[in-house]
Amino acid sequence: MTDTRFDVLGIGNAIVDVLTHVDDGFLKDKGLNKGAMQLIDEPTANELYDSVGPAIEISGGSAANTIAGITSFGGTGAYIGKVRNDQLGNVFNHDIRSAGVDFTTSPAQDGPATARCLVLITPDGERTMNTFLGACVGLSPDDVDTAQVAAAKVTYLEGYLWDPPRAKEAFVKAAGAAKKAGRMVSLSLSDAFCVDRHRESFLELIRRDVDILFANESEIKSLYQVSGFDDALQAVRRDCEFAALTRSEHGSVVVEAQDVHVVEAHPIDRLADATGAGDLYAAGFLYGFTNGGSPANCARLGSLAAAEVISHVGARPEVSLNALAREKGLIA
Amino acid sequence: MTDTRFDVLGIGNAIVDVLTHVDDGFLKDKGLNKGAMQLIDEPTANELYDSVGPAIEISGGSAANTIAGITSFGGTGAYIGKVRNDQLGNVFNHDIRSAGVDFTTSPAQDGPATARCLVLITPDGERTMNTFLGACVGLSPDDVDTAQVAAAKVTYLEGYLWDPPRAKEAFVKAAGAAKKAGRMVSLSLSDAFCVDRHRESFLELIRRDVDILFANESEIKSLYQVSGFDDALQAVRRDCEFAALTRSEHGSVVVEAQDVHVVEAHPIDRLADATGAGDLYAAGFLYGFTNGGSPANCARLGSLAAAEVISHVGARPEVSLNALAREKGLIA
Repeated sequence: MTDTRFDVLGIGNAIVDVLTHVDDGFLKDKGLNKGAMQLIDEPTANELYDSVGPAIEISGGSAANTIAGITSFGGTGAYIGKVRNDQLGNVFNHDIRSAGVDFTTSPAQDGPATARCLVLITPDGERTMNTFLGACVGLSPDDVDTAQVAAAKVTYLEGYLWDPPRAKEAFVKAAGAAKKAGRMVSLSLSDAFCVDRHRESFLELIRRDVDILFANESEIKSLYQVSGFDDALQAVRRDCEFAALTRSEHGSVVVEAQDVHVVEAHPIDRLADATGAGDLYAAGFLYGFTNGGSPANCARLGSLAAAEVISHVGARPEVSLNALAREKGLIA
Repeated sequence: MTDTRFDVLGIGNAIVDVLTHVDDGFLKDKGLNKGAMQLIDEPTANELYDSVGPAIEISGGSAANTIAGITSFGGTGAYIGKVRNDQLGNVFNHDIRSAGVDFTTSPAQDGPATARCLVLITPDGERTMNTFLGACVGLSPDDVDTAQVAAAKVTYLEGYLWDPPRAKEAFVKAAGAAKKAGRMVSLSLSDAFCVDRHRESFLELIRRDVDILFANESEIKSLYQVSGFDDALQAVRRDCEFAALTRSEHGSVVVEAQDVHVVEAHPIDRLADATGAGDLYAAGFLYGFTNGGSPANCARLGSLAAAEVISHVGARPEVSLNALAREKGLIA
């Protein structure tokens, strides 16, 4: 095995989050599915934005959050995603690079603006996401540098990337390049509605290429169209080497062909904003995995990172996850 | 006196804040004056931005923060300030309008980008500001609607507006229109370095037009070039009807020709980010003032609003100041 410069290379939709607080009545009025992500076009995004109160802008994007988490743990990370050369694209670019992530995807020079996700936070801390994909639709196989993929121990793909049509080709190219270089491929299912949109494609990819699968309970049940969590667990262990299944406050379950580990959630004082919980769980898990951790220890690092990110507004860590994990005795 | 649609009309530099945490060594390396605001050009802004970690974007601007505070108290407010028709301009526009502020200044269609202030927050909660004025330099007397000025009980001007050259003319036009309509004029001195840049102009305006002056201890001492707080206090009482002098954790002093009120600071658990303390003090004071409050009560409302805004990151209130003031028994 040749040198690996990166623990994890993430590929995803490069998005700036626009975060605001609403009440449950607002979601009902607008017919929004609480906790889900819906895709919207630019006029709808503008209309929805006009109807909410003051907001704050923070870089987001599922896989980008994960990679920022990995560097916060002290790991090495790279990211591929498409922004435009506009102000929000500059914000995204600045934030991911200054988190220590190798990010060299060239920004689009024309076409739609940098993607935005209007994140509606309800008083219970749950988030409902409304994404205008913008420049993300321009991601193509040309943006995947196979040498960079080969230099990463794990290539991590977010399921949301199945939504912009050409990005899927980039996704498949990267997975193929990783396999060819003897590296591992990881996938997050992202969202139960996303699974609904792309079930057959996901199953095919999982069975062929995915070594480490991340899903929450509703996503994994949706994938296998079963109603019981254990049914989904038994199905996934036949399909990939590792599956990390998250269950919110009930912790997570790591499933291998021969073994199952059940790990508690890390306690929190207050759920401020659930945005990024799954992304940061994946960050902790993959940091542990690429640095020799046992499956149960990987899950504990995931739970720790998820707990940090949901205790404040925004989907990227506010403190050093490395320092936090040392303090908790999870890394030496 | 005809109808007044607005309690307060604010005029200021329309700015989006870019907030990030740095340590004291960073300020020293860059030769920055802790707690001060410095003006920088776009290349310097980009260079400084490149050297800091991940940031968040929140609408700011001194007078804009004040007016957003006034509407949060339940008052009525209008704002005049210049953005460009770009993404950050849209952010500014959305945030101030969705706070209930009447904001109709037409955005610049070309020229420099919307203004940004890189706010460096040190571990002690102090903030050091680096402002690229951008589109603010395009504010001109044409942007001042004298009918709108006449419809506001108080026209409030931030001292920073003295920095972009043509904005000063807008400032003078607004003050004149307010006086002509029998309304009051209020000025914030903004920053001790800003006072240094414009001392004579400020003194002339204060003596001629200003009814309510806001300044912190270093600003008022700089204005009169005296070393003692009481010397400054005695000087200012000769120059304008009301002066509200803030002294951080030592509270504030309201000075009238015949009377002086000394009011405590509102206690806080933790100073998270001092950005907006003065702006929100002015919000509470002016809300109270335009709604029949006594000078001491105005100062208490100011202290309450300042305490709210420094207990979190960002310079606009995160909760309803009206609800907070009711809870504390400061408004009925």
